[in-house]
Amino acid sequence: MSLTVVGSVAFDALETPFGKRDRVLGGAATHFGLSASFFTQVNAVGVVGGDFGDEEWAVFKRHAINTDDIEIVADGKTFFWQGRYDYDMNTAHTLDTQLNVFETFDPKLSDNSKKAEFLFLANILPMLQKGVREQMPDTKFVAMDTMNFWISSMKDAVVETIKVVDCIIINDAEARQLTEEPSIHRAAKKIMEMGPKAVVIKRGEYGATLFTKDGYFVVPAYPLESVFDPTGAGDTFAGGFMGYLASQGAVDDEVLRRTMVYGSVMASFNVEKFGTERVDALEYNEINERFKAFKTMTHFDDIPFERAVTA
Amino acid sequence: MSLTVVGSVAFDALETPFGKRDRVLGGAATHFGLSASFFTQVNAVGVVGGDFGDEEWAVFKRHAINTDDIEIVADGKTFFWQGRYDYDMNTAHTLDTQLNVFETFDPKLSDNSKKAEFLFLANILPMLQKGVREQMPDTKFVAMDTMNFWISSMKDAVVETIKVVDCIIINDAEARQLTEEPSIHRAAKKIMEMGPKAVVIKRGEYGATLFTKDGYFVVPAYPLESVFDPTGAGDTFAGGFMGYLASQGAVDDEVLRRTMVYGSVMASFNVEKFGTERVDALEYNEINERFKAFKTMTHFDDIPFERAVTA
Repeated sequence: MSLTVVGSVAFDALETPFGKRDRVLGGAATHFGLSASFFTQVNAVGVVGGDFGDEEWAVFKRHAINTDDIEIVADGKTFFWQGRYDYDMNTAHTLDTQLNVFETFDPKLSDNSKKAEFLFLANILPMLQKGVREQMPDTKFVAMDTMNFWISSMKDAVVETIKVVDCIIINDAEARQLTEEPSIHRAAKKIMEMGPKAVVIKRGEYGATLFTKDGYFVVPAYPLESVFDPTGAGDTFAGGFMGYLASQGAVDDEVLRRTMVYGSVMASFNVEKFGTERVDALEYNEINERFKAFKTMTHFDDIPFERAVTA
Repeated sequence: MSLTVVGSVAFDALETPFGKRDRVLGGAATHFGLSASFFTQVNAVGVVGGDFGDEEWAVFKRHAINTDDIEIVADGKTFFWQGRYDYDMNTAHTLDTQLNVFETFDPKLSDNSKKAEFLFLANILPMLQKGVREQMPDTKFVAMDTMNFWISSMKDAVVETIKVVDCIIINDAEARQLTEEPSIHRAAKKIMEMGPKAVVIKRGEYGATLFTKDGYFVVPAYPLESVFDPTGAGDTFAGGFMGYLASQGAVDDEVLRRTMVYGSVMASFNVEKFGTERVDALEYNEINERFKAFKTMTHFDDIPFERAVTA
């Protein structure tokens, strides 16, 4: 099974309490693609400028990501984002955003990308997400991300896109904003009423929750004493989630639970170093070791209580 | 195995967005005792005034809680607390506190209470907690609670008490305040260095985490769409935790994991109605049904990933 992702490819300048980088490879399609590449074959759809160099292409190549649909605008510059995190690593402070070639991004999907059974619509303009989805009517499973900016400026368009996907993967603040419900349980129900059969709500250091029509599954975050750089953690989660799902073929409750765990596993690696550094250098056995650690930290024996003392 | 709890017995006046009560039975020893009584035999140590009536005693009696060590000061009044919760049910706004007979509370333990193998020191003056612990030197397992007020006003005394217990059960804000560590993982490590072999950190709607020298276990909160009244949830958690632990006798990693879940099960019932109403009326089968629900919402199959596609 193959997996297509549509989203940004970028350069990031990052500053955290633990260090600083002036230019690292970033973007949603990049973080998602690297993460998913450990599980399945990935096609990336995006756009870059002439400043996108051999070093950057090599990262995609190392992970056998198909970059045929990453358009190159030779006289343009790649999307650039500059951000800072303080000790509260949950909030990114944007210092500079230069959309550059991304401003007029119009995703063009080759037949190969369109043939993928799984599709992830990373955070881009909701109308573009919907357009891509319509180009792939026979896809087995489509998931999307979005962000607060689109929800506040064009909520109707966001909802129109939500209607045509199988799954949405967003954070708790976005779920509340979208539905105007303080409870994430009610928020998830409202989103499912719009169409999706699965809603994944990411809760940062508290982990992530999967809501489906007949179930509810919670996975905690991996206990990292220090989060080094959270940029791309959400996309890396989505990459592990969709990548594992594509590798399994069947989309059922048991598989979806494990997709949540593999998503959390991949996100926990991403934040250990700057940009793509950690996931780029990841080994397979590390993934299964950490998956095992998630099992250890959540497992308990299903032994009902039997009272020895009578009242 | 029997379990002794030392703490407040009170009347509460409560106001939440869902209703109001002028006088309900409350207090840490009450919530703890009711919860633990489903699992083991409980001795409650506390003090009440002459206003404590038949209706209140009947609640303890219904749950076979030994109240011999609840002192009655006939010409005094029972501890009274008045609080309000807004939609953010995580924060209680105290409107009135009348310590009354609790102000000069000096726990007196009968031989029967002292003989218990398990002891819970609910939130009272840290020097009193330590005094009780010293009266029970042979106890198998001692856990304690504390609160922000004692940590800020007499941290040294709190630490002296922590040194002589096996386990501390506190919320995340208290753990951070006590250790001056923003990360709860480092906070838990620092607390273990003070003495306890187990640290339980309660995280409200995000569940609870158990730290031990060689392990880490996370349990989510039960997904309640509406929390009706959170008063006593922490003590009800501790009651389920210590009650189940006492019922099992052995204190090992496998049992401690289930104590975390039974604690969470009991707390999830407590918040469904005002005061002790819900737990007082609880049936055994409801406990095991909800325990099962916790298993369902956290279980995933431990299947390592094997890559079908090669890079």
